Amino acid sequence: MDLKSKIRVIEDYPAKGISFKDITTLLKDSEAYAHTLDLLADAIRDYEFDYIIGIEARGFMFASALAYKLNKGFIPVRKPGKLPAETVSESYDLEYGSDSIEIHFDALNKGDKVLILDDLLATGGTSLACAKLVEKMGAKVSCLEFVIELEDLNAREILKDYEVISLIRYDH
Amino acid sequence: MDLKSKIRVIEDYPAKGISFKDITTLLKDSEAYAHTLDLLADAIRDYEFDYIIGIEARGFMFASALAYKLNKGFIPVRKPGKLPAETVSESYDLEYGSDSIEIHFDALNKGDKVLILDDLLATGGTSLACAKLVEKMGAKVSCLEFVIELEDLNAREILKDYEVISLIRYDH
Repeated sequence: MDLKSKIRVIEDYPAKGISFKDITTLLKDSEAYAHTLDLLADAIRDYEFDYIIGIEARGFMFASALAYKLNKGFIPVRKPGKLPAETVSESYDLEYGSDSIEIHFDALNKGDKVLILDDLLATGGTSLACAKLVEKMGAKVSCLEFVIELEDLNAREILKDYEVISLIRYDH
Repeated sequence: MDLKSKIRVIEDYPAKGISFKDITTLLKDSEAYAHTLDLLADAIRDYEFDYIIGIEARGFMFASALAYKLNKGFIPVRKPGKLPAETVSESYDLEYGSDSIEIHFDALNKGDKVLILDDLLATGGTSLACAKLVEKMGAKVSCLEFVIELEDLNAREILKDYEVISLIRYDH
């Protein structure tokens, strides 16, 4: 199955010159969605991990289903102020200014191993912050996995200390 | 399995007097999470539907996995400005002011049948808006399903025209 054909490309969204990859058309197609999850599972079969972390909000759409499929626990990493208990946070730079992500203070224990799953690898800033968040808690990132990778943004450079896997690659 | 024991209750969050039901402790427990999905699937086995709609963002954590489990397509309903293509929107009242939710204009066709799944049934305002959104597109709501229901908020009254199913009930 050609998964790329299931992804809708929207030009000039959210800003002029950006070709946005819309995964909602893939999610709506039950066969394409199941096939994507099968491929995500197959691609990380050699990695050991206890939990799957999904990054808000599109990451949840794949990470929670993959956690269920692989019989792992699911842990959300969210934008500031969205998690109800105490949190640990990590900041990252944006083109203008900065942002941060949070995880519950008791979501991970020292020595836990995790898979971080997100829908899209663009510049890698959020993914790197998420990996640092995991390490700040004494846990280990087994692998970072993405449904889509935008190769021209060269995220693998800033993620060079990690295992990185993606299913569907675009030049830009 | 006593699923209630897997849910963390956080007092006075997000405001004084509210006992917040934190599902992240359930999601992290792979057995409890899988059991919840089994129960969600079992409870709606007599309803026919083509797609499962998840409401942003906690709804995604159950709806996407249930869609995968039942081999259905997954459709996200999101907060304003989050979906990349054209949208249809529906407003609903909050205690102070109002809010709205959106779905892609082409997510549903006339005659499609959907299951709407969210983590929590509180006042029912968001769920009712989501049901109206589905009907605005000519589709039909087979059932509204929730992991948790707060019974004292009496949402079943404003949802009386719909089938409503919940797994775990709290007085408040």
